[in-house]
Amino acid sequence: MSTIKIAVIPGDGIGKEVIPVGMRALEAAGRKHGVEFEWTEFNWSCETYHQTGRMMPEDGIEQLSKFDAIYLGAVGFPGVPDHISLWGLLLPIRRAFDQYVNLRPVRLFEGVPCPLVGKQPGDIDFYVVRENVEGEYSSIGGIQYEGTEHEIVSQQSLFTRRGTDRIIKYAFDLAQSRAKKHLSSATKSNGIYHSMPYWDGRVAEIAQSYPEVNVDQFHIDILTANFVRMPEFFDVVVGSNLFGDILSDLGPACTGTIAIAPSANINPEKTFPSMFEPVHGSAPDIAGQGIANPLGTIWAGAMMMQHLGLPEMHDSLMQAMESVLREAEHLTPDMGGQANTLALGAAVVAAI
Amino acid sequence: MSTIKIAVIPGDGIGKEVIPVGMRALEAAGRKHGVEFEWTEFNWSCETYHQTGRMMPEDGIEQLSKFDAIYLGAVGFPGVPDHISLWGLLLPIRRAFDQYVNLRPVRLFEGVPCPLVGKQPGDIDFYVVRENVEGEYSSIGGIQYEGTEHEIVSQQSLFTRRGTDRIIKYAFDLAQSRAKKHLSSATKSNGIYHSMPYWDGRVAEIAQSYPEVNVDQFHIDILTANFVRMPEFFDVVVGSNLFGDILSDLGPACTGTIAIAPSANINPEKTFPSMFEPVHGSAPDIAGQGIANPLGTIWAGAMMMQHLGLPEMHDSLMQAMESVLREAEHLTPDMGGQANTLALGAAVVAAI
Ligand SMILES: CC(C)[C@H](C(=O)O)[C@@H](O)C(=O)O
Ligand SMILES: CC(C)[C@H](C(=O)O)[C@@H](O)C(=O)O
Repeated sequence: MSTIKIAVIPGDGIGKEVIPVGMRALEAAGRKHGVEFEWTEFNWSCETYHQTGRMMPEDGIEQLSKFDAIYLGAVGFPGVPDHISLWGLLLPIRRAFDQYVNLRPVRLFEGVPCPLVGKQPGDIDFYVVRENVEGEYSSIGGIQYEGTEHEIVSQQSLFTRRGTDRIIKYAFDLAQSRAKKHLSSATKSNGIYHSMPYWDGRVAEIAQSYPEVNVDQFHIDILTANFVRMPEFFDVVVGSNLFGDILSDLGPACTGTIAIAPSANINPEKTFPSMFEPVHGSAPDIAGQGIANPLGTIWAGAMMMQHLGLPEMHDSLMQAMESVLREAEHLTPDMGGQANTLALGAAVVAAI
Repeated sequence: MSTIKIAVIPGDGIGKEVIPVGMRALEAAGRKHGVEFEWTEFNWSCETYHQTGRMMPEDGIEQLSKFDAIYLGAVGFPGVPDHISLWGLLLPIRRAFDQYVNLRPVRLFEGVPCPLVGKQPGDIDFYVVRENVEGEYSSIGGIQYEGTEHEIVSQQSLFTRRGTDRIIKYAFDLAQSRAKKHLSSATKSNGIYHSMPYWDGRVAEIAQSYPEVNVDQFHIDILTANFVRMPEFFDVVVGSNLFGDILSDLGPACTGTIAIAPSANINPEKTFPSMFEPVHGSAPDIAGQGIANPLGTIWAGAMMMQHLGLPEMHDSLMQAMESVLREAEHLTPDMGGQANTLALGAAVVAAI
């Protein structure tokens, strides 16, 4: 019997509703496979911010560093400006633990109504590989002539060779391991003069070491259009922090609901804990109603197991999720059903 | 009989195929309404670049400044890096002529198969108002430690009070003039620390002068998802240069084809000529086949007429386009038909 130590940060809004359901699903799979969990919960959130002026304590990162992994719900709530809440919690964790890969699968499941005409389960099945610690997400910059008509805001993005190469290589490795061996790179080198031509150059350079991988690149504008026009075309899509963020919300929307999609913030070297969360946010509009879809969180839990070297735990969770979806019972409203968070979670536990 | 002087830049790829069709449609409408055109064609393109080392001559901007408007096909072709071709032609024109509004209608027409389940013509009908001269499209930045493992690329975005306010006001004015009076602002203030919170602040400030307009804001990631989930929700969407670019390709893709969508690069004060082009690019994959959809170019021509104070010309062109689509004959392959560029163009001319 192995024991896994997980730091749990439910966070804000529906984060607090879906995380307990994810924990129950993981425990159910654990009972089957002889895995125990030691959960340590942190109430870091916008509420904490209102009380203490901080999203997490000063030694927050240090506290988290002792865990095998981090399981996060969602961060951000009206009343605290988004850049304060996110730069006070989610983004520093990604950076401090060098979780430079954000891996986000996009898949159309049997049982989930697809908003695109004529797409069948199996047609959509790709990964977005997102750079997760540098690029456009940057706090470098500032304002001059503040408060006057002449205000100028400067916002800087930084792309390093190390940061660019390692995410592109990760994406190539993933593409190489898949049947289609097809990598698409998101760019905008026609409009963004320095960073994006650089990105393209690194993709071209690294491609030479992967002769079996079929590579193409699309400007982000037409790439979003192509997600709608021909999602079946994609296999692995690699993008900068911002482009990956956009594509990994749009992709899941094309499969019926973004609430099913997981986000694995991975430190591949395992020097630091990795973090697993649903793609969706805190959803203030439905928070408190108990109708949030917990599947993104459960799938994130499955990815956590995979990362920790427990593929049979991963597979149990995925099979349970797939069978519940296939029966198209217990679906939450975002998937066209009437079930609530707990009912859908219970169905997954029962299926395990 | 009034004569309109238009500078024509067919550009690259399918730009050269669709622009002549647009000219014929404009002439047909002109015969009906007593408007004559004086066309002056400029062969500025990637081909010119190969011959001369420049996309346009040094006095290109000065040459264009004498026209009532500019009619552009598409710029960019394999063999010339995109940042060279675009920063050598399209982007300097937008800037030199202070075409700070990029207005891009998104509409689902009767006769065009929609890729989204259950959407009817009329359901999708909104505008993307894109900032067109500053923001993320910036040549400020550079590279340090070039050619070494330590390369760092810095890319700067600039947002000015003047540039931000004027596009937001334009969008509010447009929303105010429409039945739904609904404005959605694209942001990413949770990840991009300086520019996007600034943008949100300006939207909030300017909103106070438009009490009748219903305002909301979405982070760009979920906004792209919402274009797929509920395109009927949107009325006017305002975004920065990059976000507007993305949304105005994605929006048209949700209406069946991006090739129908026009792009009006407007200098509202009419101090300088405005420029009208289709949203689509030079499409090297289908260039030379004669199957490009000319409707984006024709619609761009209609917007040019509107801008020049000739609404009856605009209406003639739009009605002709709508009637050809409604009959669902003469559709190009991108709309599921088999007609070629010239046949579709001829059908529009006949309908005028
Ligand atoms: C070609 C490119 C620079 C251009 C842009 O991004 O502005 C195009 O995509 C457009 O939308 O007009
Ligand atoms: C909340 C926000 C900062 C975050 C991001 O953009 O990274 C979220 O959208 C995500 O995709 O994980």
